[in-house]
Amino acid sequence: MSEERTEIGSLGEFGLIDFLTRDIDTKNVSTLLGIGDDAAIVETFGKQTVVSTDMLVEGVHFDLMYMPLKHLGYKAVVVNLSDIYAMNATPTAITVSIAISNRFSVEALDEIYAGIKLACERYQVDIIGGDTTSSLKGLILSITALGEVDERKFVTRSGAQPNDLLCVTGNLGAAYMGLLLLEREKKVFLENQQVTPSFDNQTYVLQRFMKPEAQRRAIEWMQEHQLMPTSMIDISDGLSSEILHLCKQSETGCVLYEEKIPIHDETTENARKFNIAPTTAALNGGEDYELLFTISPTDFEKIKEEEWLSVIGYMTSPEEGKKLITQGDKRIDITAQGWNHYTL
Amino acid sequence: MSEERTEIGSLGEFGLIDFLTRDIDTKNVSTLLGIGDDAAIVETFGKQTVVSTDMLVEGVHFDLMYMPLKHLGYKAVVVNLSDIYAMNATPTAITVSIAISNRFSVEALDEIYAGIKLACERYQVDIIGGDTTSSLKGLILSITALGEVDERKFVTRSGAQPNDLLCVTGNLGAAYMGLLLLEREKKVFLENQQVTPSFDNQTYVLQRFMKPEAQRRAIEWMQEHQLMPTSMIDISDGLSSEILHLCKQSETGCVLYEEKIPIHDETTENARKFNIAPTTAALNGGEDYELLFTISPTDFEKIKEEEWLSVIGYMTSPEEGKKLITQGDKRIDITAQGWNHYTL
Repeated sequence: MSEERTEIGSLGEFGLIDFLTRDIDTKNVSTLLGIGDDAAIVETFGKQTVVSTDMLVEGVHFDLMYMPLKHLGYKAVVVNLSDIYAMNATPTAITVSIAISNRFSVEALDEIYAGIKLACERYQVDIIGGDTTSSLKGLILSITALGEVDERKFVTRSGAQPNDLLCVTGNLGAAYMGLLLLEREKKVFLENQQVTPSFDNQTYVLQRFMKPEAQRRAIEWMQEHQLMPTSMIDISDGLSSEILHLCKQSETGCVLYEEKIPIHDETTENARKFNIAPTTAALNGGEDYELLFTISPTDFEKIKEEEWLSVIGYMTSPEEGKKLITQGDKRIDITAQGWNHYTL
Repeated sequence: MSEERTEIGSLGEFGLIDFLTRDIDTKNVSTLLGIGDDAAIVETFGKQTVVSTDMLVEGVHFDLMYMPLKHLGYKAVVVNLSDIYAMNATPTAITVSIAISNRFSVEALDEIYAGIKLACERYQVDIIGGDTTSSLKGLILSITALGEVDERKFVTRSGAQPNDLLCVTGNLGAAYMGLLLLEREKKVFLENQQVTPSFDNQTYVLQRFMKPEAQRRAIEWMQEHQLMPTSMIDISDGLSSEILHLCKQSETGCVLYEEKIPIHDETTENARKFNIAPTTAALNGGEDYELLFTISPTDFEKIKEEEWLSVIGYMTSPEEGKKLITQGDKRIDITAQGWNHYTL
């Protein structure tokens, strides 16, 4: 963050908006009218519009003691784009609403926007509107993402059939280990401010938490390879919770193999140091923003060579329940123990 | 509000969402997929999608001492729909994000949703998604509205030409008088809790503040009468501020006649009691949610018989400035003194 401090009140509402949006231009030809009017206009002839929204609250979803403002802005966008990709759609635009207390300066707000703009640049998404207001306490970010999808090509959570293969992109549990590390260092720092945190061999898990990415390439790959999942969801609350969503909305059961869950070496190493089973981090941690999806068994040929895709189980009839087969070959019920912000 | 109190944490995140959205169905054939997946899907073939967003923060935009939760929910929707109408578009759907502290119960949240649903019912808008989370302090509502408009029929703030007539729907300043009354009664109540507020002959101004409406009929009327404004904006921050927006974005000046500004009798009466010029309430008060627009002088015939429409001035070349002609025939500069939430 810059050393300067401009009070937010000094610019006035419209001055502030002009400042924050000074270098925003639109990338998608479908964005006919962006920031600066009562609303934005998006062209969507022959496509279907996909809409998703997420709100991030300081002290609930993020801690500014270890989350730099630019990373926060980036992550807030990515979290929303992840939902759009999870519909098999392409994000095109976002609106950004921010409430901030006067504890923050214009420079701080500009840092958040820098992260937002960077994510929009990377994912080729337009910022088409928003609202910036004061809050009595803390920082609240609310982003709504729009996307588009060819007619009837969207993928919901409810289309899985028994025998469909359960697949996941990338690897799981890393972001949760990143969070645990940051929480531990915060505690150490609060006790002794002379200690500098050491994050050797932890850059991967930290990055997964601090600067997650949405699965744009996975969706593009599926479209190129004409792979149409039967159901899909993004992993924000942990694998268990998301599997249960697919089963509930598709009215199926499932079998999940513990040994098939993809976990990065650095996640495993750090989990051991924290005395946590790596599988627990994958099942109950969250914020991986990988995609969990099901495909027809006849599509297995299309994916079997892809190292970044793992088949972790299969769907069953609902009577068979939602089961995890452990590495010790035990058959146990999958229960949701993901992030629950209401436990505050 | 009901006397029961269910703690929000007791339902869990998904239980809470199921409860709040239990009776939401979709009204617009264009809503292919609503609540319950990663995102919603909207069909918009042959139309253009209009998007607007607004965030309301407790203690900044509303005071729960005099704003019932149901009214708050209603108003939060209307404020957003007003922006969609101001583009000459028809709202079709909203997403609703709410952050609440654990000071609120499930019943309180349900009251807010009751107001949201009532507004959606009245304006035939679908609730297609949202996010509900905890806040560390207070209540924050963030709503994004989607609408549709026939190809290239949207109206921006930037199309006004010199000599265009400046028009406004309904009447102005009433909501601001309603706010002043409520603020006064709150002060009285805080000093002496035995006093019951008396709001005789003030129901109109109170309603304008507590339960504003968006200008659906005005837009429908314009479409029926093939009246296409050259520019348009909704009045949320006061007439002065909105006129300056039109002039700035259209690169024009304007002449506004004080005597032509439509003001309700009850607004005038109450303004006098507060020792405020009624014109000041209209110019600098806010939250009227009327539409301010310009039309070509050749369209005057279409509107001249409409009592709910007032011609309050005309646009000029930019060199002529932005002028108010007072009832005493003085020519003064229009300056923005509307609501400014950054003065906190």
